[in-house]
Amino acid sequence: MGDPAGIGPEITAKATASQDIRGLAVFVVIGDKAVMQRAFSENAPRGGVRCVHAGIDEADGLALEEGRVYVLDPGGGDLAGITPGRPSPEGARKALLCIERAASLLELHDKDHPMAMVTSPVDKKEISGVRAGFAGHTEFLQEYFHAEMTTMLLAGDTLKVATVTRHIPIREVPRQLTRELLEKTIAQVIDNRAMISGKDRPVIGVCALNPHAGEGGKIGTEEIDVITPVIGSLRGSYGYIKGPLPADVAFYQALKGEIDIVISMYHDQGLGPFKMMDFDNGVNMTLGLGHVRTSPDHGTAFDIAARRVASSRSMENAIRLAVNALTAGASGLK
Amino acid sequence: MGDPAGIGPEITAKATASQDIRGLAVFVVIGDKAVMQRAFSENAPRGGVRCVHAGIDEADGLALEEGRVYVLDPGGGDLAGITPGRPSPEGARKALLCIERAASLLELHDKDHPMAMVTSPVDKKEISGVRAGFAGHTEFLQEYFHAEMTTMLLAGDTLKVATVTRHIPIREVPRQLTRELLEKTIAQVIDNRAMISGKDRPVIGVCALNPHAGEGGKIGTEEIDVITPVIGSLRGSYGYIKGPLPADVAFYQALKGEIDIVISMYHDQGLGPFKMMDFDNGVNMTLGLGHVRTSPDHGTAFDIAARRVASSRSMENAIRLAVNALTAGASGLK
Repeated sequence: MGDPAGIGPEITAKATASQDIRGLAVFVVIGDKAVMQRAFSENAPRGGVRCVHAGIDEADGLALEEGRVYVLDPGGGDLAGITPGRPSPEGARKALLCIERAASLLELHDKDHPMAMVTSPVDKKEISGVRAGFAGHTEFLQEYFHAEMTTMLLAGDTLKVATVTRHIPIREVPRQLTRELLEKTIAQVIDNRAMISGKDRPVIGVCALNPHAGEGGKIGTEEIDVITPVIGSLRGSYGYIKGPLPADVAFYQALKGEIDIVISMYHDQGLGPFKMMDFDNGVNMTLGLGHVRTSPDHGTAFDIAARRVASSRSMENAIRLAVNALTAGASGLK
Repeated sequence: MGDPAGIGPEITAKATASQDIRGLAVFVVIGDKAVMQRAFSENAPRGGVRCVHAGIDEADGLALEEGRVYVLDPGGGDLAGITPGRPSPEGARKALLCIERAASLLELHDKDHPMAMVTSPVDKKEISGVRAGFAGHTEFLQEYFHAEMTTMLLAGDTLKVATVTRHIPIREVPRQLTRELLEKTIAQVIDNRAMISGKDRPVIGVCALNPHAGEGGKIGTEEIDVITPVIGSLRGSYGYIKGPLPADVAFYQALKGEIDIVISMYHDQGLGPFKMMDFDNGVNMTLGLGHVRTSPDHGTAFDIAARRVASSRSMENAIRLAVNALTAGASGLK
C-alpha cells in the first residue's frame, strides 16, 4: 500500500485491477482495509477485490484463488484521521506495519509457492520519526533478510542502470568506491543479467568515476586504481563487459542499443540519464536480498494524492518485472 | 581546421560549403592550404573555395566577398608526412598555429566587422607535447583574452546545459564548488540567456550537487551552504531561476520543456544527459571570453578520419550558434 496519504493505494488498485496485470499472478495487497477498499472502489470499481483481514495461515502458506486480488490488513494503526496528501505519524506507522508483514510473508516463498514483493512509495522521513534509523525499503529489507550487500537496479523501457554507491554525498563517493564493492555490484548484475535484460549475454557497460574516464590519470586516478582492475578480473568469467567508459559515452551507447546494462558509480551519474528517459515507467529493483523485490521508481506524490490522476504505469512495470524475475528462477536472486 | 589528421578538415569543408550555411557569413578557414584544398575537393567539389595564403592586412581588417569561403594558411609546419587518423607532433604544431592565428584575427572584431571563432577538434595530448600546459581551446583562449573566468555551455537540439566545474576529478568537485564560482557561472548564463535559449525569460534550473538535493542536509550540505544562498541572491535580479533541483528531476523537466537551461555542478552530471540526447548535434560554447567562440561537441575521431563518413551536423550547428550570438550583439558576450 505504501503511505496511505500518498498515491500508493491508488496506483496499487489501478495496477492490480487492470486486465493486463491481473492474470499474471495472485495479488495480496498488504494494506489498510478501509483505505484500500476506497482506493479499489474509486479506481477499479469492478475489480473483484476480496478483503481478507488476517486469516492467512502462515504455517500452511497461502490458499488463494488464481486471478483474484486480495487485501490483507496487518491490523494496528488508526487511519480514521488520515487526509490524502498529508503525511502523518499514523500513516507512517501503518505503512511500516505493512512492510514488516509483507517481509514476513515473503519468508514463506518456496519453489511451490514463489512469491515476490512489490513496494509502494513511503515517506522515509515520516517513518524515521516512528522508527528511528529507517532509511528506506531497501535498507530495511537488507537488514531483515540479513543480506550482506544489495544492488539498486533501475529498469525502464529505455535504460537499465545499476548504481555502485547510492544515497551518499558526492564528497563521500571516491572513498566508498572500493574494489570490493564494485566487484560485488558487477557480480550481482552479472548473476541477474538475464532477468534484467532478457538476454543471455547482455553487454554490460561500466562507467568511469571521473570525466573523460580520467584521461589516463590526468583527471583522477580511480579508473586506474579501482575500476580497470575490477573489470579486468571479472572479464575472465564474463566476457561481455566493457569500461571504464566516460559516462557521456556510456549512456549515448545505451540509448543506441550498444550497451544493455549500464553500471554507474554514483546516484546522479546513473539516475540523471535514467529518469530523463524513464521517469514515468521506471522500476527500482533490489538485487541480492535472496528474494524478489521491486518498486515503482517514484515517490509518494502527496501533491496529487486521491485525485485519481496518478499513473500506475511504473507500478505495473514493477509487477511485471517481479513476475519475470520469479519466472527466471530463484537462481538469479542471490 | 583542428588536427589535420582528424575529421576537422572534412567537417569544416562540408559545413562551410553547404548551401544552408554558406549564406550565413563570410568564412575564413584557418588551416593548412594543402590539407584544406584536399578536404574541399573531396567533400565539397563545387564549393567555390578560394585559398588566401597570408595576404590579409590586419591593420585594415578583412576585405572579403560575401558568400564565399576562404582558406587562410598561417604558414609554418610541414604536413607532407601527415597520415589521416594518426596524430603527430607536426599536426599538433600546425593546429596550434591555426588557433593562435584565429585568436589574433578575432581581436579585429568590432561592430562593423563582427567576428566569431568556431574551433575544430584538436588532440590535447599531442598539442601539450608541443606546448607544455595546453589544456584545450577554452583554457588557451581564456588566457589569450585575459578572461577572468569562462563558462562551458553545451547547446543541443534537445538540451542546453552549463557546467560549474569542468575537467576535474570528482573528488575535487565539492572543494571547487564555491559561492563565488557558482554565482559567476549563473550570472554569465543569465547575461547570455537570450542567445542560448532564444527566449527573453528562459527558466534556468540549477542542479543540486548531491542526490535528492541533499534531503535537507542528510545527504551532504553543499545545497544549504553554497547553492541555495547563491540562487536566493540572484533571484532578486532574475526571477526565472529555480533550484537546487535533484539532477534526476532537472533533466526530466528539461526534456519536457519546463526548464530551458540546466546548470550542472560538474561534468558528468550535465554531460551524461546532454550527450545522450545531443551527441550528434551538440555544440560547445565558451561564455565570458568577450568574443564569440563555439565548437562542435565531439573529438578528432581519428578512427574515421578522411573516410568521408563524418557528420558535419555538430559543426554546422556550431556555426549557426556563433552567427546567432553575433546577431544577439556584443552585449551578451561578457
